[in-house]
Amino acid sequence: MRYDFGSDNTAGLAPEALSALTAANTGFARAYGADEITARCADVIRDKVQADAEVRFVFSGTAANAIALSMLARPFEAVMAHQAAHVCTDETGAPGFFGQGVGLIGLPGPSGKIDPTALKAVLSEPEVGHRQPPAALSLTQATEYGAIYTSEELRKLIEPVKARGFGVHLDGARLANAVAAGFDLADIPRLGVDILVLGAAKAGAPCAEALVIFDKSLTRRLDNRLKQAGQTASKGRFLAAPILGLLESGAWEGHAAHANAAARALADGVQARTRYVLAHPVDANTVFVRMPAAHHKRLTDKGWACYRFDDGSVRFVCSWATTEQAVVSLIDDMVDLV
Amino acid sequence: MRYDFGSDNTAGLAPEALSALTAANTGFARAYGADEITARCADVIRDKVQADAEVRFVFSGTAANAIALSMLARPFEAVMAHQAAHVCTDETGAPGFFGQGVGLIGLPGPSGKIDPTALKAVLSEPEVGHRQPPAALSLTQATEYGAIYTSEELRKLIEPVKARGFGVHLDGARLANAVAAGFDLADIPRLGVDILVLGAAKAGAPCAEALVIFDKSLTRRLDNRLKQAGQTASKGRFLAAPILGLLESGAWEGHAAHANAAARALADGVQARTRYVLAHPVDANTVFVRMPAAHHKRLTDKGWACYRFDDGSVRFVCSWATTEQAVVSLIDDMVDLV
Amino acid sequence: MRYDFGSDNTAGLAPEALSALTAANTGFARAYGADEITARCADVIRDKVQADAEVRFVFSGTAANAIALSMLARPFEAVMAHQAAHVCTDETGAPGFFGQGVGLIGLPGPSGKIDPTALKAVLSEPEVGHRQPPAALSLTQATEYGAIYTSEELRKLIEPVKARGFGVHLDGARLANAVAAGFDLADIPRLGVDILVLGAAKAGAPCAEALVIFDKSLTRRLDNRLKQAGQTASKGRFLAAPILGLLESGAWEGHAAHANAAARALADGVQARTRYVLAHPVDANTVFVRMPAAHHKRLTDKGWACYRFDDGSVRFVCSWATTEQAVVSLIDDMVDLV
Amino acid sequence: MRYDFGSDNTAGLAPEALSALTAANTGFARAYGADEITARCADVIRDKVQADAEVRFVFSGTAANAIALSMLARPFEAVMAHQAAHVCTDETGAPGFFGQGVGLIGLPGPSGKIDPTALKAVLSEPEVGHRQPPAALSLTQATEYGAIYTSEELRKLIEPVKARGFGVHLDGARLANAVAAGFDLADIPRLGVDILVLGAAKAGAPCAEALVIFDKSLTRRLDNRLKQAGQTASKGRFLAAPILGLLESGAWEGHAAHANAAARALADGVQARTRYVLAHPVDANTVFVRMPAAHHKRLTDKGWACYRFDDGSVRFVCSWATTEQAVVSLIDDMVDLV
Repeated sequence: MRYDFGSDNTAGLAPEALSALTAANTGFARAYGADEITARCADVIRDKVQADAEVRFVFSGTAANAIALSMLARPFEAVMAHQAAHVCTDETGAPGFFGQGVGLIGLPGPSGKIDPTALKAVLSEPEVGHRQPPAALSLTQATEYGAIYTSEELRKLIEPVKARGFGVHLDGARLANAVAAGFDLADIPRLGVDILVLGAAKAGAPCAEALVIFDKSLTRRLDNRLKQAGQTASKGRFLAAPILGLLESGAWEGHAAHANAAARALADGVQARTRYVLAHPVDANTVFVRMPAAHHKRLTDKGWACYRFDDGSVRFVCSWATTEQAVVSLIDDMVDLV
Repeated sequence: MRYDFGSDNTAGLAPEALSALTAANTGFARAYGADEITARCADVIRDKVQADAEVRFVFSGTAANAIALSMLARPFEAVMAHQAAHVCTDETGAPGFFGQGVGLIGLPGPSGKIDPTALKAVLSEPEVGHRQPPAALSLTQATEYGAIYTSEELRKLIEPVKARGFGVHLDGARLANAVAAGFDLADIPRLGVDILVLGAAKAGAPCAEALVIFDKSLTRRLDNRLKQAGQTASKGRFLAAPILGLLESGAWEGHAAHANAAARALADGVQARTRYVLAHPVDANTVFVRMPAAHHKRLTDKGWACYRFDDGSVRFVCSWATTEQAVVSLIDDMVDLV
Repeated sequence: MRYDFGSDNTAGLAPEALSALTAANTGFARAYGADEITARCADVIRDKVQADAEVRFVFSGTAANAIALSMLARPFEAVMAHQAAHVCTDETGAPGFFGQGVGLIGLPGPSGKIDPTALKAVLSEPEVGHRQPPAALSLTQATEYGAIYTSEELRKLIEPVKARGFGVHLDGARLANAVAAGFDLADIPRLGVDILVLGAAKAGAPCAEALVIFDKSLTRRLDNRLKQAGQTASKGRFLAAPILGLLESGAWEGHAAHANAAARALADGVQARTRYVLAHPVDANTVFVRMPAAHHKRLTDKGWACYRFDDGSVRFVCSWATTEQAVVSLIDDMVDLV
Repeated sequence: MRYDFGSDNTAGLAPEALSALTAANTGFARAYGADEITARCADVIRDKVQADAEVRFVFSGTAANAIALSMLARPFEAVMAHQAAHVCTDETGAPGFFGQGVGLIGLPGPSGKIDPTALKAVLSEPEVGHRQPPAALSLTQATEYGAIYTSEELRKLIEPVKARGFGVHLDGARLANAVAAGFDLADIPRLGVDILVLGAAKAGAPCAEALVIFDKSLTRRLDNRLKQAGQTASKGRFLAAPILGLLESGAWEGHAAHANAAARALADGVQARTRYVLAHPVDANTVFVRMPAAHHKRLTDKGWACYRFDDGSVRFVCSWATTEQAVVSLIDDMVDLV
C-alpha cells in the first residue's frame, strides 16, 4: 500500500525537524520545558506572529484544541465551530472530555468555511437556561476541506464574536499551508484570536504542536493545567527542537509551499485528464475528488491509500514528502480508472 | 548549572533510542499507530512480559497513569496508592481530571513501599455511600524513593486486592531500573497486575511510555479512549521507534544497570567520605541524602541542580547519561561542604 | 399571566402527593433513603413494572437522565437519541457534564419518535477511533411532541440496539400520560430497557423522579454514585412520599388521563373552531398548534403563557390541574385571534 | 430503633416549613424558579445577610458545596478545607466530580476549626507545576464537630486568603445553629465570603439549601450552570417555600436555638451523671462523647441510633424535633451503661 496521499501524517520527519532534534541531544538540560531550546522556539514563534504571547508545546493537536476550548468555554457553555471542523468530527469528543461537557455548535458553510450569516443567527438567539449558550468561536485555517480564509473573511467572523466578549480559537493544524499560500501570520493576533494552535506535525515535525496564547488573562497556572492534562513534556527540548528546526530554517512554510504545489499539480491533472470533478477549491495541500465508490475501490486496489470524506468525496493529501513522481503516477492511475 | 543529577529527565536520548527514531524516518507509513514499527514494538513488549496484552504508546507518564486509573476506578471510587507515589504528589491531580473526580487513598510505608498492614486496614473498612470506596491499587516499581519491591512483597499487596475483585495498576516509570536490579518482568502479569505503564522516557527515550493492558476486558474502544484523551500519536512510528530501539538492543535494561551502578557509586562515596546519612535504600538509580538546608544551598551554589524532596532529604538521580567523572566530582564537592 | 398551559411544571402538587408528603411527617426516620416510605415506594414501582429492579429517588429529571446515560456510555462513547429529545435540547448538556464528554447522536423521526431506519444507519456505520461510537439508545415515552410509541414500535428500536450489546434508557418524564393512554408499564423491562426514569414531577409530585434500574450489573456502588452527583436525599422520605401517594392511589395514571383528556378537548376545539393546524398527533397531554407569530403574540398578550417550540409550532401543555373552564377560555381566545 | 439523635436529617419538617410548602400550593406558577415565592425568599435572604447577592435554591448540600467550589477553583487547582469538613469526608468526592478533579487540601485544627498557622503554611508554599495550588478556602460554620468560629477567628482565616486573591466558600449546613448561638449573619459578606451555602434541611426544611453568591463576577450564566448540574427545580416554588417559611417566621434561628439547648442539656447530663468525657465543645447542636465500643454497642442495642465519628467519639445530634423527654431518656440509658 502506498500512503503518499492518505494523510499529512503518513509522511515522516522533514530533514530540518530531524536534524534539529538530533542537534538538541547534547548533554543535560533542564526538564519540563525550562530548557533553552524551548525558550528559543517560543521566541521565534512570538517573532513570527509579531505579538507577545505565552507559548507552550504539546504532543497532540487534539489535546491542544481541547485544552484551548476549555480555556474559553465552561462546561455549561458551547463553542461555535464549522460542523466539519476537526474538533467536531475527528477528535472523539475531546472538547467535551477536557471541558467536562462543553458543547459544540456546528455551523454550516462551503468547504469548511463558516457562513457568517449562520454565525450571526446563532449569536442573535436569546439565551435560555436549558441550553449551552455560545462562549467562543473556533476557526480552522486552512479548513478541513482545503480552503483558506482571507483575513477579511476572518475579520467578519471574529468581529461579532469579540463584540459579545466571546473568545476565539484558531486551529492551525495546516496553518503552514495557509501561510505558504499568502496568509499573514501576524493577522492572527491582529484580528483578535485569543488562542492559536500552531501546527507542526503536519508540517514535518513529529507529534508536536504549539499552543500560542495571546490573551494573557487565560494563562494563569497554565503549567499546572497542562501537567494535569498529560501534556507536559518531561524532556521538553525534544518537543520544541523539531518545531524550532522547521521555523528557523523557513522549512515550515517552504515545505508547505511544496505540498500546496503538489496538490495544485494533482488537481490540475485531475481536471485536465479525467472527468472527475473537484469537490472543493484547492487553496492548500488537499484535493477532494468526486468519484464513484467503484472507482475509489479500484484506486485503493491499485495500492493508493485514500479515504472517502464526510461530504462523499475522496480526499488526497500532499505533504512536504510528496514527490512529483507520485503525483504523476496517481494521476495516471486515476486516468486508467475510467 | 549542571543538571546531571537533577532528574532522570534532564538526560538526553540514549543512542539506541535516537538511532531507532532516525531509522524509522523512511518513506510513508500508516498514521495513528497502524504502522509496522508500532506493531513490532508491541510484540517485543509482549515477549518481554511473557504474556498477551494490548499495548499502546502514549506521550506522558502522567497521562498513562491517569488513563489507567480511569479504567480501573469510576468517579465515585478511589485508588489506593502510596502517599508518596507520583500519582499522588506529582501529577497535579491528573487522576481526578481524567477520572472525573476519582479519589486517591494515600497509604504509608517506608521508602515508597506500601505497608501491607495499612493496605489491609483500608480494605477492611466498611463501605459507606458518602465515601469513595477503593476500587484499585496503584503500585510503583521502583518506588519514588528508589526502593524496589520483591515479587513476594508485591504478591502480598496484590493478593488481597484481587481477592476483592479490585484492579491493579503498576507505574513503571523506573521499571527498567528495577529489572536491571533483578526484578522479573514476567512477574508483572503473573502477580495479577491489570495495567502496566512501562516507562521509556526515564530509560533514554524521548517522551514516550507504553500502556500494557493485561486484562482484555478493559480494552474495549481503547483507541477511542486514547484519542479523546489527546494521547494518540498521528505519526505513531516516531513514538514507538525509540522504545523499540531501547528494548531490542537490550539498552533499556543495560542503561538502567549503568544508572543503578552510578547511584551505588554515589551512595558509597557519600557513606565513605561524608557524614551524611542516606535517607533510603539505594536499590535503583536514586540517592537520597539527609543534608542541612545550608549545605544543600552551597551544593547548588556550586552548580549542582538537586532538589529537596517531600521527606526533607535531597535527591540525586542517575541516568544512562551519568558519567563516572560526574559522580566523582559531585562527591568531591559534597566532601568540601562540611 | 395565566400559566395553565405553559408547562406541566407550572401546576402545583396533586392532592395525593401533598397529603402523602404531609402524612410522612411523623417523628424521626432514618436518613438518606433508608426509611420505610422509600422502601415501600420502591416496592410499589417494582410491582407496577412487574420486574425486579433497583429503585432510587432523585430530585431532577435532568440529573436522572444524565446519570442514567453515564451508566450506559463512557466519555468516549455516545448515546443515540431523538434530536428533539429533552437530553439533546433542554438539559444544558447535562449528559456531557455528568458523563465527562459523553456524546449525543441526534436521530430524526416524526413527532419525536425515532425513525428506525435512521437508527439502523447509525448502528451500521463502521467504528473509527476518532469518533464517539454509539453505546446506548435513549428513548422518550411520551415524546417531546406528545406522541406515544406503541410497544411494537419500541421493540423495533430496541432490538437492534440490544443485539449489539448496547444499553437502553427510557426517559419517562411523561410516562404517566403514556400509561393513561394505554401503554403497558410492564413492557418496559420486557422490551429490554435497562434504565427507566419514571417521572413524577410532571405527574403531580414536587421535584422527584424515580431511577429504576433493571440491569443489576449497573448498580454496583449506586449509592456512592448518587451521593457524589448531589442526588441523595438526606431526608429521603419526603422525596419518595409524594410519588408513593400518587402511585398507591392510582392518581399517577388518573391525573394523567385527565391531562390527556384536556389536551384532547383542546385539540378538538382548535380543529373544530379555528383554522389552525395541529403540528403533531395528540396522544398525550400536549397540543402543538401552527400559528403565525403575530397570533402567538396576541395570545400571550391576552395573558396565556405558551411557548414557541423548536419546530416552530406553539405548545400547550395540560396537567392534572388543567380545568375544563381553562380549556374553554383558551379556545375562545384562540377563536378571537383570527 | 430511635433516630432522635442519629443525625439532623432524621427529623421531619418543621411546622413552619410544611405549612409554607402547603400554602404555596395554590394554582399555577412560573416554573424553574421564576415564581414569586422564589423571588421573595431570595429577598429575605439578602435582607438577613444585609448584602446584595445572587440567590438560588438547590436540592442538596453536597451539590451546593461542590458547585460553589467549582466556581472558585479550576480542575488543576485545589480548595483548602478542614480535613474533617463535610466536603472532605462525607460527600463521596463530589468536589472532584463537579470540579473535574479539583483538589482538596485538608487542614488540621481542633474540633473542625482550621488552625490559622496551618493555613498560612499552605499559603506560603511555593507554587509548582506538578501540584494543585490552592485557589480557595472552604469554611464550615458550625463545624462538623459542633464548634462555632467567632467572627474574629474567621477574619484571621479569610484575610490571608483574600490577600492572595483566592475565593472563600462557607458551608452553612448548620449555620442556623451558629446564628442561634450568636453569630452575626451579616458578618459573612462583611468578612469577605464569596459564596455561602445557607442550610435549610438540617434546620427543618425538606432537602433544600440556598446558594448565596456575593461575588457577582461568579454568577455569569449561573442558571445554565445549575441546570446542567441537575440542580434546577422545575417546580421551584416548592423548593423555596419551606425555606421562606422558616426564615420569615424566625423559626430558622428559633428551632436552632432549641436544638442547641437540647445539645447543651444532653452535654450537661453526660458530664453531671456519667464519667464519659466530651470530645468537643458543645457550641451548637451536636454532642461528641468518648465511649468504649462495648458501651456504644449497648447503647445502640437499647435502641438509640448513634454513630461513631472519625475521631473515635460517638456523635449525638439534636434538632428542632428533639424533645426534652428524649434527652432525659438518653441520659438515663447512658447512666445505666456503666
